[in-house]
Amino acid sequence: MSRRLEILRRATEIFERQGVSRTSIEDIANAVGVKREAIYYYFKSRNDILAEIILPSSTALLVGLRNILRSDRPSREKLRAAIEGHLSAFSPSYLEMTVALREVHFGAGDDKLNELKKVWTEYGELWTALIREGQANGSFKAGVNPKMASFGVLGMCNWLSRWYQPGKGMTIADITDTFFTMLADGLAQVPAPTPPSA
Amino acid sequence: MSRRLEILRRATEIFERQGVSRTSIEDIANAVGVKREAIYYYFKSRNDILAEIILPSSTALLVGLRNILRSDRPSREKLRAAIEGHLSAFSPSYLEMTVALREVHFGAGDDKLNELKKVWTEYGELWTALIREGQANGSFKAGVNPKMASFGVLGMCNWLSRWYQPGKGMTIADITDTFFTMLADGLAQVPAPTPPSA
Repeated sequence: MSRRLEILRRATEIFERQGVSRTSIEDIANAVGVKREAIYYYFKSRNDILAEIILPSSTALLVGLRNILRSDRPSREKLRAAIEGHLSAFSPSYLEMTVALREVHFGAGDDKLNELKKVWTEYGELWTALIREGQANGSFKAGVNPKMASFGVLGMCNWLSRWYQPGKGMTIADITDTFFTMLADGLAQVPAPTPPSA
Repeated sequence: MSRRLEILRRATEIFERQGVSRTSIEDIANAVGVKREAIYYYFKSRNDILAEIILPSSTALLVGLRNILRSDRPSREKLRAAIEGHLSAFSPSYLEMTVALREVHFGAGDDKLNELKKVWTEYGELWTALIREGQANGSFKAGVNPKMASFGVLGMCNWLSRWYQPGKGMTIADITDTFFTMLADGLAQVPAPTPPSA
């Protein structure tokens, strides 16, 4: 493992454990077993490290969602694929997702964090577009505000950063099924009993 | 306003603005315009202040949900009332909810924070019970894991702490309608066109 990669791995672990705001460059240096200066050789600041941890998985999510939207699948299947894509990021990249979703504060002058912000904004817009497209082609309920709905879906999925524990109990596949069933078909939509004559 | 209450108000504002972990007792004292000692006269620690800020709204949510569950309304209406109750907490208690949901780390020996943890645990269990009850009486889909579903609903609602801005754009009433429609009836459940003969 390169020194640069090792710094990113250790920083991710510490960020997840004690929070970004409580972590100093010193803490990261200690975990890697080097001096502060060695960290600054590779990274400008703590936010620089943070952005490099989060950007890859965020960009992968964005690219994945773009591809789903461009495909010619029915809207219902696109919704399922989008939920699956988002939740699946928690499995290999659990630490990165958790750090990203628990606490990222965008400040002025943080170039890399601003890049991240752009990725997230576009990602949210694509979700809204997915729902709007489904409404336009008659697959989704027309009366629902697509932006509010996308905040709802993303909230449901992002909240995994607060409760999901990889490898324990619920699997990502089960959670995907459950969330998709609730969101697409509704918890209170129960098939009517078959009439006796049928 | 009593001194004690003033400390709680100022602390809430600072916690929301700069995060709990970045806030010192000194910061709170400065905001109130007193010395550190004056803060310690009323509160043992920062976590003590944090718990007192969050406990009242969390307890109110718990009591509200208990009452909803005990009522004899149909499960569908209970679900709506529970979503409404949860989201409504963001309107008068926006700052408290945001601080509570963004970052509370439970440590050993924090009596008051542990009290909060108990409240949250019971609250989550009541949500699961609400869904399970609806499944038992045939109002909700049987195949859905009630605990996973309650994490989903709570995530959808709790995520408001990351995007909702009181007084701007979307209202709590609109968000309640949208989330309830999605969760109860499903985004992809579109009424079939009326047959011409009907």
